[in-house]
Amino acid sequence: MINVAVLGYGTVGSGVVEVIEGNNAQVSANAQDDLHVKYILDLRDFPEDPYGDRVVHDINVILEDPEVSIVCEAMGGVGAAYEFTKKALAAGKSVCTSNKELVAKHGSELMALAKEHCCNYMFEASVGGGIPIIRPINTSLTAENILVIQGIINGTTNYILTKMGNEGTDFAQALRQAQEKGYAERDPEADVEGYDACRKLAILTSLMTGKNVDPEKIYTEGITKITSEDFVYAKAAGLSVKLLATGRRMEDGSILAMVAPFLIGENHPLAMVNDVFNAVFVTGNMVGDTMYYGRGAGKLPTASAVVADVIQCALNPGRTLPGGWSAEAADLADIADTEQSYFVRARREAKAQVEEMFSGRVFELEGRKEDFGFFTDAMKEREFSEKYASLGDKALGRIRMA
Amino acid sequence: MINVAVLGYGTVGSGVVEVIEGNNAQVSANAQDDLHVKYILDLRDFPEDPYGDRVVHDINVILEDPEVSIVCEAMGGVGAAYEFTKKALAAGKSVCTSNKELVAKHGSELMALAKEHCCNYMFEASVGGGIPIIRPINTSLTAENILVIQGIINGTTNYILTKMGNEGTDFAQALRQAQEKGYAERDPEADVEGYDACRKLAILTSLMTGKNVDPEKIYTEGITKITSEDFVYAKAAGLSVKLLATGRRMEDGSILAMVAPFLIGENHPLAMVNDVFNAVFVTGNMVGDTMYYGRGAGKLPTASAVVADVIQCALNPGRTLPGGWSAEAADLADIADTEQSYFVRARREAKAQVEEMFSGRVFELEGRKEDFGFFTDAMKEREFSEKYASLGDKALGRIRMA
Repeated sequence: MINVAVLGYGTVGSGVVEVIEGNNAQVSANAQDDLHVKYILDLRDFPEDPYGDRVVHDINVILEDPEVSIVCEAMGGVGAAYEFTKKALAAGKSVCTSNKELVAKHGSELMALAKEHCCNYMFEASVGGGIPIIRPINTSLTAENILVIQGIINGTTNYILTKMGNEGTDFAQALRQAQEKGYAERDPEADVEGYDACRKLAILTSLMTGKNVDPEKIYTEGITKITSEDFVYAKAAGLSVKLLATGRRMEDGSILAMVAPFLIGENHPLAMVNDVFNAVFVTGNMVGDTMYYGRGAGKLPTASAVVADVIQCALNPGRTLPGGWSAEAADLADIADTEQSYFVRARREAKAQVEEMFSGRVFELEGRKEDFGFFTDAMKEREFSEKYASLGDKALGRIRMA
Repeated sequence: MINVAVLGYGTVGSGVVEVIEGNNAQVSANAQDDLHVKYILDLRDFPEDPYGDRVVHDINVILEDPEVSIVCEAMGGVGAAYEFTKKALAAGKSVCTSNKELVAKHGSELMALAKEHCCNYMFEASVGGGIPIIRPINTSLTAENILVIQGIINGTTNYILTKMGNEGTDFAQALRQAQEKGYAERDPEADVEGYDACRKLAILTSLMTGKNVDPEKIYTEGITKITSEDFVYAKAAGLSVKLLATGRRMEDGSILAMVAPFLIGENHPLAMVNDVFNAVFVTGNMVGDTMYYGRGAGKLPTASAVVADVIQCALNPGRTLPGGWSAEAADLADIADTEQSYFVRARREAKAQVEEMFSGRVFELEGRKEDFGFFTDAMKEREFSEKYASLGDKALGRIRMA
């Protein structure tokens, strides 16, 4: 019998219990032992819940019970979750989580602590919900020099951008619809400003390099400045707008890490990733492109990935599995040095100025009298930013081209 | 130092050496030890080759060398490859391979033998080339009751069907182009008749069920009967033709396994999988759809997957990893009991007969005087086949609808 404790009985925590109990035959067969939820830690009581009798309020009950070998941290945040994770690992109990904020911020410390105590800190569910992506990188793409990781890793913003593209709604309307459907939180900042994608990208690029990528050092741009006017031009040009998270190994060995909206062609394989779906491309020097696609969030998909980690911990008692990254800081590239093309939207009266300033092509749409579009040739971000800034309030928007 | 022997120095075998030597820093770091190719078994000599000094002609040199702990079988076929694999496993040496024919035919026996000798028989590269699919099923989707596995798992036929769809060429022409590009063999039967996809599906459905699925019992239909006329109708209806391999858990617990061409809508996520690319959907009862995409063949992608297996073996000496299936036969469903819609193409004079026989809708194209199309409503395969057969030579073709 393998006893598991679940910390936090919210969406993910209750999902973990549901997966372990609902699929117990598969879960226990794959764990090669009976897997059982012994405790659920929460401040609340759940007298009506079928598992309400397992609820405890004191973390020490779990920490001091030698029968509990695996803990699922489903509390979120970097406060108590961080403290409890440290204590559990120090007690030799493996911890499995979907808490991307904690993994991005303290992952290397927590993995080192797990190693010291011959257990595991695992976080498959922290990126891409139920899509296997962390373990494929750690165990399947091990013969590769990973060159690029690029994907759509935030479902909320992808839903909003899909809505704006399909229905011509503006950002505020699309956000409201996402909130009504439960895809966006009441305070949507972490999603729409790109912070959630940034944390996930920090995890992916840390795995890619074996070194620590600080999420605060990743260039991060959200989708709040994308307007329905941008979409008018994008659609006319056969392009979609996607919030892409990109980690790219540069020639000098540094890593470019950025989260930003990009225009992509309709034949780009990420163009078909719509609504709340996620997809991540991982490109290796031998295998070329591989891609992983599925629901990037949701109670049961996320819980399924947490339980898959629990099963790996159950199969490897006393053994820290390979993978992860050290505390050493990864060398991040300055995005000012990157080169790409840009779509610029500007006021009509700036047309001569734009044409003189950039090489590229004008993209005008019939019936639009106030603005026009322009696709620049590839150029350095630094040069572009300076020129674009010089347009002042005649500049109406710019989106990078993938 | 971990010493590897490579059996067969053809495309995959030389790729394995290239990946181990070319990415040795990553490979050895991930294996947590120096990984080295000690022997290459081939009947030929390679005096000009940089690794020519490692070539041996006698398998016993490898079997009797206690320094060799891992063998890569890249010979193909089910003759000597089978014998050498058995001998290596019996000597306690793990075997990694891309040989789908051998895995589909003797996988359960070879895995049992590996278990008996505390080593591993691994075959990530046998399905989907470099795309991680076997290990995600064995280690990531372990909390799932897998309901469906469906995908495009033969690159040659996908290339041919993509050509036929895009350029209106007939099957023979498209096959010739595939052969010129090296995507199809001179004897293309295994690909175009669906046998290769069938073997891969046998592996996937065996993993899904934990029981043995005999490839000879899988309903298998190739693409040789698909004509350019079928594509004229498909394109007009906004549909693509794809050779789909499907494993589906039926209500009674049996498994439907079939390889056959299907018509799919342009919004179907497999519709964007073109040319030699592969993609596999795995649907679980908790996670929903997950999808894995990439190059399904090719020297280096395939070799990369073989080497990833080698690394797992290197990390687990003396330990048989979970996964695989038993010798017990899986319970396969009769496809006659399945229900779906069909596209029928028939001679004009049969129109009244078709309309009377099937419920559904006529699909006529302007300018076509000899034939017409018909989309049936969903019906049992058994009933459909009888009715379709009764059309005799007035029936010109039929394709199932996904």
